[in-house]
Amino acid sequence: MAGAEIEELVKYLARLPGLGPRSARRAVLQLMRRRESLLDPLARALVVARDNIKTCAICGNIDSCDPCMICADNRRDSSLICVVEDVGDLWALERAQAMRGRYHVLGGTLSVLDGVGPKELNLDTLKGRCSSQISEVIIATNATVEGQITAHYIGDMLAALPLKITRLAHGVPVGGELDYLDDGTLVAAMQARFEN
Amino acid sequence: MAGAEIEELVKYLARLPGLGPRSARRAVLQLMRRRESLLDPLARALVVARDNIKTCAICGNIDSCDPCMICADNRRDSSLICVVEDVGDLWALERAQAMRGRYHVLGGTLSVLDGVGPKELNLDTLKGRCSSQISEVIIATNATVEGQITAHYIGDMLAALPLKITRLAHGVPVGGELDYLDDGTLVAAMQARFEN
Repeated sequence: MAGAEIEELVKYLARLPGLGPRSARRAVLQLMRRRESLLDPLARALVVARDNIKTCAICGNIDSCDPCMICADNRRDSSLICVVEDVGDLWALERAQAMRGRYHVLGGTLSVLDGVGPKELNLDTLKGRCSSQISEVIIATNATVEGQITAHYIGDMLAALPLKITRLAHGVPVGGELDYLDDGTLVAAMQARFEN
Repeated sequence: MAGAEIEELVKYLARLPGLGPRSARRAVLQLMRRRESLLDPLARALVVARDNIKTCAICGNIDSCDPCMICADNRRDSSLICVVEDVGDLWALERAQAMRGRYHVLGGTLSVLDGVGPKELNLDTLKGRCSSQISEVIIATNATVEGQITAHYIGDMLAALPLKITRLAHGVPVGGELDYLDDGTLVAAMQARFEN
């Protein structure tokens, strides 16, 4: 149809989450229309990110420094570790300013189907971090089946250590409408109801 | 939040149509996770496309050669020109194999609000192409207000020439359900009804 160079670019853009073949084609048109203001800076930013972004050896976050800025920040509560599945979850909690401690990124969830066992996740390093200075581990895996199984596994793994292990609460999302919520959430919210 | 390099990459990715800030962040994570298989080839494909893709001087299509492969293809009907707003529309018609002639890409539509007059579009070159060899000009601008105004303008511009000027038919999309169609389409489809 169009040149091979365009097809090639469409192919790789379509692999990004959120872009399919059709939107990738629209993206290519946008890129070709704005070479100076969009294509060039994007190509440069890709190379710069590629060369500079490292995975934090302590928590598994990605950042331009190792240890990452969160691990290096002394104003954060070093007795608190929040375990998340992925860097995206860490970013979400940071955006919400919901955590004042440090993080631990697992890099996925346990999954029999996908052949992900405990060794494939950053679990050993988590255990290694749970020294006497840590008072609480917040397990903030997703509320999916895999996330909950992983949370359970971590809970067992750390059960013998003298620290508090907590989980995120289930309930009605702020601004959410009951009519649109699934039954599981409604049951959980009802069970965890609190006195006004 | 994350490193400045990540923020920079998110910023440019979020400018692509179809990606917002949130999906751009997910895209960055995907890119950082798959540096060899996705980030590197994407960065290369961007540079290759940037250096090799030209705008066809005849029709305004983008391709690795100028004239583009469609204009250079002798098996196509050279007496037929299909006028489209954008390269994306050309691609859509090519995918559908709906056109066996050549194209002319306007590069937009007339728009008083956006300050786009006839001089901003490839209208002079269209007039120049409408020689005695052209028997039909198909105006395939979008069925939007701007597209229809532009189609009207082109119709007037070419009215004096000895060629047929046609427009795409309005009607029910194939596979479409009447219940979900807007009134304008239904009225047009009813008016253009044909004997079974």
